[in-house]
Amino acid sequence: MKILDCTLRDGGYYTQWDFENELVQNYIDAFNHLPVDYLEIGYRSNAMTEYFGEYFYCPTYVLEKIRQQSQRKLAIILNEKDVRAVDARSLLSPCLGYIDMIRIAVDPANFKRALSLAEEVRSMGFELSFNVMYMSKWSGNKCFLDFLPEANGLLDYFYLVDSYGGVYPEDVRQTIDMVKEKLECKIGFHGHNNLELALINTLTAIDSGADIVDATITGMGRGAGNLKTELLLTALNSRDNLQVNFNALSNVVSDFEKLQEQHGWGTNLPYMVSGANSLPQKNVMEWVTQRFYSFNSIIRALQNQKSGVQDN
Amino acid sequence: MKILDCTLRDGGYYTQWDFENELVQNYIDAFNHLPVDYLEIGYRSNAMTEYFGEYFYCPTYVLEKIRQQSQRKLAIILNEKDVRAVDARSLLSPCLGYIDMIRIAVDPANFKRALSLAEEVRSMGFELSFNVMYMSKWSGNKCFLDFLPEANGLLDYFYLVDSYGGVYPEDVRQTIDMVKEKLECKIGFHGHNNLELALINTLTAIDSGADIVDATITGMGRGAGNLKTELLLTALNSRDNLQVNFNALSNVVSDFEKLQEQHGWGTNLPYMVSGANSLPQKNVMEWVTQRFYSFNSIIRALQNQKSGVQDN
Repeated sequence: MKILDCTLRDGGYYTQWDFENELVQNYIDAFNHLPVDYLEIGYRSNAMTEYFGEYFYCPTYVLEKIRQQSQRKLAIILNEKDVRAVDARSLLSPCLGYIDMIRIAVDPANFKRALSLAEEVRSMGFELSFNVMYMSKWSGNKCFLDFLPEANGLLDYFYLVDSYGGVYPEDVRQTIDMVKEKLECKIGFHGHNNLELALINTLTAIDSGADIVDATITGMGRGAGNLKTELLLTALNSRDNLQVNFNALSNVVSDFEKLQEQHGWGTNLPYMVSGANSLPQKNVMEWVTQRFYSFNSIIRALQNQKSGVQDN
Repeated sequence: MKILDCTLRDGGYYTQWDFENELVQNYIDAFNHLPVDYLEIGYRSNAMTEYFGEYFYCPTYVLEKIRQQSQRKLAIILNEKDVRAVDARSLLSPCLGYIDMIRIAVDPANFKRALSLAEEVRSMGFELSFNVMYMSKWSGNKCFLDFLPEANGLLDYFYLVDSYGGVYPEDVRQTIDMVKEKLECKIGFHGHNNLELALINTLTAIDSGADIVDATITGMGRGAGNLKTELLLTALNSRDNLQVNFNALSNVVSDFEKLQEQHGWGTNLPYMVSGANSLPQKNVMEWVTQRFYSFNSIIRALQNQKSGVQDN
């Protein structure tokens, strides 16, 4: 079973993908001493009109610097929404020799389109993973499920992504079983922590045969955040006797706790409500971080969304 | 299934059991609108040499004020370690007419001694609960388990307390089954959140037949803290359609979030390590809140405790 830490990639939602050089260097150093197999360092992306920082584009000098320093496998992710198969060569050629695995974030609605991007990436020689979102809504999506077998032989990992942070351990178990019936592929799990279920869902995924799981330091990540790497490693240390260098771990946790004081990721009542009801947390995150709306009005808006009433 | 909120009692560990009047009034008001059955408002205690505030002693004027304002059942807790059967009348007579349930925090090592205190409390006409600590270590404690049937007919609730925050859902299920074999009594569960397992452990307890569960607003409570009341209510709202007034809930959560900014309860790496290894968190809490020792030295001390090495 392998572990992937995606703190820089998923944490970038709070910093526009800018991180101080010293922080990144300490982060990479720490993971040279920790039992984690992959570091996902950011996105590769076509130029956007909105401002995004270094780790949203991962230019060559970033790839080079991190490759020199890290003894771990490195990954970057593509957002399928914004990347077509024709973009793959120009986006990914600079990654050759630096990056081991390309992950593709896929909306199940675009699964078939994503397959051609996947073929292009595969032909370049990278390890390849699909991170398929919204797992709490897959069971109603017959169209997506029927297409699943077409990914046979194409992917190294097929990830279940709990985008809403709303699944329970039993859902994880059932969904892994369902995917394994349709697809011969290693399974990954990426949990969010809205309901503080990221650890138990991830351990359940491991016990159900997942081959790779994601986490981030202090849970830094969009909205309520991810499974905390320090929590996963501590649990696997006591449960499965995984060897963990707690000095290295506590150093990198301390660094990101300072950032957390500024940005305040983690779950709270609005994220709990959005998670429990499989509602998108992007809006909730904007409402909460701007501190413009009261919690009351956020929750009222969420409840209106749930019951299909239009927000004011 | 019933819910007990023990924010004032368990949160008192961070404030020496002093809370501002307005905060308490808003707290009681909020719970008049929330689907929670019991409020545990504090301890009743013999005079101690160390300073402890109002909700550690719950003098008559406190009992009277809260009884007038609250529409919920009220509980207080006795710490069996410091209270003998001969103390019961003087400590509890002032509670008659105000307090519905007396809970007794019991170390399994003192279970037999606690039975005589329980008989005294029972004879006064209160509902009665045992909150038996250290559940992650019960299975090795034959002496305690053999005594369990002696509590038959004496208690309204027998609580499993996950003192270390170290149990997993499967442990909860098995321990409830084990207790039910020895004792005919309603079961309670009190979870701690070191490993962010308080929600799933509590839901597992409910699904395994628990009749009452504990939570606190924002998880305020000793060390890493408790199951968050707002998380439990949100999960039961979406899962079991429990009716929740989210306006009342968000108001009381906001109040305690302000206190949390001062005191900083919640889990972190040292609490995770203590939970995962069933180590006492009292020392860890002192080390962490005083911020005198580095995380490194705390974790080294914990690892020494685990391997039986004496701390420096």
